[in-house]
Amino acid sequence: MTATSTPTLQDCRALDAHDPLRSLRGHFTLPADTVYLDGNSLGVLPAAAAARVADVVAREWGQDLIRSWNTARWVDLPQRLGDQLAPWIGAGKGEVVCTDSTSVNLYKVLSAALNIAREASPARLRIVSERSNFPTDLYIAEGLCRERGLELVLVEPEDIAAALTADVAVLMLTHVNYRTGAMHDMAAITAAAHAAGILTVWDLAHSAGAVPVDLRGAGADFAIGCGYKYLNGGPGAPAFVWVNPRHADRFWQPLSGWWGHAAPFRFTPDYQPAAGIGRYLCGTQPIISLSALQCGLDVFDAAVPLGGMPALRAKSLALTDLFIRLVEERCDGHGLGLATPRAHEQRGSQVCLTLDSSPHAPPLRGSLPPEGAAAALGRPGGGGSVAYAIVQALIARKVIGDFRQGDGGTGPHLDILRFGFTPLYIGFEDVWNAVEHLRQVLESGEWRRPEFNQTNAVT
Amino acid sequence: MTATSTPTLQDCRALDAHDPLRSLRGHFTLPADTVYLDGNSLGVLPAAAAARVADVVAREWGQDLIRSWNTARWVDLPQRLGDQLAPWIGAGKGEVVCTDSTSVNLYKVLSAALNIAREASPARLRIVSERSNFPTDLYIAEGLCRERGLELVLVEPEDIAAALTADVAVLMLTHVNYRTGAMHDMAAITAAAHAAGILTVWDLAHSAGAVPVDLRGAGADFAIGCGYKYLNGGPGAPAFVWVNPRHADRFWQPLSGWWGHAAPFRFTPDYQPAAGIGRYLCGTQPIISLSALQCGLDVFDAAVPLGGMPALRAKSLALTDLFIRLVEERCDGHGLGLATPRAHEQRGSQVCLTLDSSPHAPPLRGSLPPEGAAAALGRPGGGGSVAYAIVQALIARKVIGDFRQGDGGTGPHLDILRFGFTPLYIGFEDVWNAVEHLRQVLESGEWRRPEFNQTNAVT
Repeated sequence: MTATSTPTLQDCRALDAHDPLRSLRGHFTLPADTVYLDGNSLGVLPAAAAARVADVVAREWGQDLIRSWNTARWVDLPQRLGDQLAPWIGAGKGEVVCTDSTSVNLYKVLSAALNIAREASPARLRIVSERSNFPTDLYIAEGLCRERGLELVLVEPEDIAAALTADVAVLMLTHVNYRTGAMHDMAAITAAAHAAGILTVWDLAHSAGAVPVDLRGAGADFAIGCGYKYLNGGPGAPAFVWVNPRHADRFWQPLSGWWGHAAPFRFTPDYQPAAGIGRYLCGTQPIISLSALQCGLDVFDAAVPLGGMPALRAKSLALTDLFIRLVEERCDGHGLGLATPRAHEQRGSQVCLTLDSSPHAPPLRGSLPPEGAAAALGRPGGGGSVAYAIVQALIARKVIGDFRQGDGGTGPHLDILRFGFTPLYIGFEDVWNAVEHLRQVLESGEWRRPEFNQTNAVT
Repeated sequence: MTATSTPTLQDCRALDAHDPLRSLRGHFTLPADTVYLDGNSLGVLPAAAAARVADVVAREWGQDLIRSWNTARWVDLPQRLGDQLAPWIGAGKGEVVCTDSTSVNLYKVLSAALNIAREASPARLRIVSERSNFPTDLYIAEGLCRERGLELVLVEPEDIAAALTADVAVLMLTHVNYRTGAMHDMAAITAAAHAAGILTVWDLAHSAGAVPVDLRGAGADFAIGCGYKYLNGGPGAPAFVWVNPRHADRFWQPLSGWWGHAAPFRFTPDYQPAAGIGRYLCGTQPIISLSALQCGLDVFDAAVPLGGMPALRAKSLALTDLFIRLVEERCDGHGLGLATPRAHEQRGSQVCLTLDSSPHAPPLRGSLPPEGAAAALGRPGGGGSVAYAIVQALIARKVIGDFRQGDGGTGPHLDILRFGFTPLYIGFEDVWNAVEHLRQVLESGEWRRPEFNQTNAVT
């Protein structure tokens, strides 16, 4: 293909044929005839997971029972998975554990960060975050603030720098925004926060396994992230937590359970935290789900000889560039906007399209009625969402993306069609097919069918 | 068998033949030739779990992917499992969720209880618990006290009543002691606490599925418990949390994650807790492990037409009575003591034997050297543990119990040999065989072999 002509299906197939990561797709079991662009919500099934989980259930649990704490090394599984993940987020050995949920881990590190920051400077009474941060992060911060009499200050991305004042204890950000796919400059923001005496907590839910992350290089303080998105760890897979070694032994976190004890099997009545990251463990972990997460991490091991994260990042950007270009050139005139930054250094591994769902929005082109897109759904007052119906129509065509209602950074009526591109298993022909289906859905107006407008879906 | 003669193997087989719950053993996949008396640490594998987990992995995750939140009802799995568990702990529908770990759930309810108690009476600055409570419970309480400037007061069981003073906010107890198997009178202690204006938090880790529990009948305030012991939910299975409906909507807990939000898929930036028990959910749960837990709960459903908890309790007491009697009559003279109460109303579903590991302990009978049991292990200063070596020798004979080091309620040198009896799958012949192996281990002195004295086991 050339820089000037729109890429064709044949061009995309040629790109796949020359993709050095193409073989990685064989490490997954994908549903047939599906273009799965929702790996940023739930990653796909590693081909090895079924056998691995079956072995954990039948042999480790069923036959070896309690002995598997030693023989199957359940006892250090959170640390072993953490070590396996570490190089993908710029962390060292012994600095990461896979455990609990992202929300619970955020509570731990945010508590620890507040304990450190406020011991050094009790007048720091604020947590700063982004208004369009993932809601559970804001809820956890809200709960901590309520408990400790602190204030959660929410700002727009462009106002973060100005918000780093002397009364702020912690800056808590998600590296890649879950709605827009916009990526922060972790090193620059961390440096600005440190210059103001503020600690940083980074949520890597949409970064780990998806984009280059260098926690140590950026000098970040704390990080948490998700096991079931780009890491392909399975539904609700345990999350992870990282603490910069300079903080690891200094402070405590309140979820001080037995698995974070220095000698967990001594069963002493008083809590003595384990050295380093071990103290961020709490209770007994779900071993079956943890074992599935290991299969997801194993695929990343297989990506190392094929070029590792630089190769994954190059392919991810090529996929999202292609998607943006094809949407703009082949789906032009339907009112779609782009929420994801065009600049590579500001983009994660997803593309978010916007659609105005207000009653005054201009009509979509094609077979749409003249009274506007929202009105076409038969809902007065602009409550209808064309974007939702389009996503449902795409799902019926086995192109799986998801929908996020308009609010936060994109405004109340700017709904989001969200498409994640996991370079481990998505190919360029997938991108072409996804856009072709989107074009057909828009041109035909099939999204107006009643079955695509029932808001019972969880995606 | 008669009341006066020691039961024989034939007597035990006759008891099994007439056991109305005998068919339930077929609902589990047990390792061959093993007497598994460690179901109070990790329950066995339900026969249905392998196929269920395989289906969750291959179909729900692998094929249906993100749609399974709706089609497989992942979205309300914690509530559905909670409803399934509820009748076994005296709770109503909509009052229980299965989620997170026991430690994390304890943090939630202890936080909520403190918030309620201290709002009513700010001068209540203490949490009272039992010195020999399960350590992780004490660690979590210690963390909360440290965070909030409160005091954790630890007492012996006989001193609980006297400790319920006007400065106490919460009484936190484990219903059945993990070391001794002693069971508290939940209704009487709760009434005494309430009379003093104190809220109660009960840990049901060794009770749920093992003994009758009537949380509503006792008027308890909060409860948490474990999914992987008597409920047979799999290694590290998610735990559960119950809140008395009178508190459910009144107060918040700080682990306020998205799954506890009133409208979790609206992704609004401010936290609005779900009604009732839903607010005790936090982050996304490990669906594979949760699904295995359901298989454990399904066996309890199958127990209902066979007599339900009254039948399970009757069998449990018959099993533990038999074990105590056989040990006392067939293993007499080896220095074994009984830590578990003889009175039925004070006994859980386990039996704990004690053995003095001090250097001045009397010698064990049989082939032991005359210089005392501890010295026989070749460790000066009483550091050796005969009890540990005996448990290891039993495990080598495929009689699986576990060892708990002497401290807490039993004193520094009174080590524990712990045997759990799950009436769902343990039979009377199992009891006879276990005691026969114990007798042979004691008589032969085979526990003195070096391989049984390596303290690398986690049990």
